[in-house]
Amino acid sequence: MQPETQRASVTTPTEREIRIERVFNASRERVWLAMTDPDLVAQWWGRGNKLVIERLEVQRGGHWRFVEHSREGMDGFEGRYREVKQPERLVHTFEWDGMPGYVAIETITLEALPDGRTRVINTSLFHTTEERDGMLKSGMEQGLNESYAALDKLLATVS
Amino acid sequence: MQPETQRASVTTPTEREIRIERVFNASRERVWLAMTDPDLVAQWWGRGNKLVIERLEVQRGGHWRFVEHSREGMDGFEGRYREVKQPERLVHTFEWDGMPGYVAIETITLEALPDGRTRVINTSLFHTTEERDGMLKSGMEQGLNESYAALDKLLATVS
Repeated sequence: MQPETQRASVTTPTEREIRIERVFNASRERVWLAMTDPDLVAQWWGRGNKLVIERLEVQRGGHWRFVEHSREGMDGFEGRYREVKQPERLVHTFEWDGMPGYVAIETITLEALPDGRTRVINTSLFHTTEERDGMLKSGMEQGLNESYAALDKLLATVS
Repeated sequence: MQPETQRASVTTPTEREIRIERVFNASRERVWLAMTDPDLVAQWWGRGNKLVIERLEVQRGGHWRFVEHSREGMDGFEGRYREVKQPERLVHTFEWDGMPGYVAIETITLEALPDGRTRVINTSLFHTTEERDGMLKSGMEQGLNESYAALDKLLATVS
C-alpha cells in the first residue's frame, strides 16, 4: 500500500485571498532551508520537472526567478522579497510569465509544532477577486499538492 | 510673470485607487513617444535629476527599471508591462526600491482631444487602502507635478 499523501487545506478567507495550510514532518529550520536554498528548491518546487533557479536572493528587496522546463515548454515565475524573518516568515511577490503584470503577495509563515513538525501557512493576496479566482481555476491546487508531496520526500531524505 | 503651470487632477475614485488626470499640449503620438522612448523619458521623469534608464522594454511581459540620482542618493523604481496598445493604453506594475514587494498597477490612457492636445489619465490600483494612502502622503503629488512640468517643456521642444 502507498502511504497516504497529505493534501493541503485551501480556503478563501476574504474575497481577494487564498489561504493554504499544510503540515510537514520536519523541523522549522529544515523546512525554511528547503524553501530558501536554491539547490533544495530545485528538487521540489517543479514537481519533478527540471527547475532552473535564475535568481533567489532571500533578503528584503531581493528578486527571485524560477524557470520550469516541462514537456509542454518553459514557464517562468518571478517576484521580489518584501520581508524575510528567518526561520518564521517570508513575504514576496509572485508573478507568472503567462500573465505578466498580475502580481500576488505571498505571505508564508512557518510554525514550529510541539511534536517537532512544522505548520506552513501560505496566504496570497490578489489585486482583484477575478485574479484570485483565475488562480484557483488554473489547476493551482493540484500543482501545489504535487510540489508539497515532492517537498515531503526531500524533507525525509535530508535529516 | 511666470506662466501658470497646470496642476494635475488627483482623485481617489475607489478605496484602493488614485486617479490622475492631466492635459498636455501635444499630439497623442508625441506624448506616447515621450513616455516610451528611453532618451526622452530620461529628460522628464526624474524632474531635473539624473535618471538612468536601466531597462525599458515596452511590450507585454517586458520589464522597466529607472534609477534617479539626486543629492539625497539613489532611488530605484521598476515594474513590468501587462498591456501595451500604442498610442492609447499602457498597463504596468510600479514598485519603489524603498518599499520592495509593494506593487501598484498603473493604467495609463492617452486620449486625443479635438484641438490636438492629449488627455492623459493615470489610474493606480494598490493591494490595500493603507498602501494607497501611504503613496498619497509620500509627496507623490508634488513630484508628479514637477515631472509633468518637465514633460510640458520637453513636448514644447520636440515639435
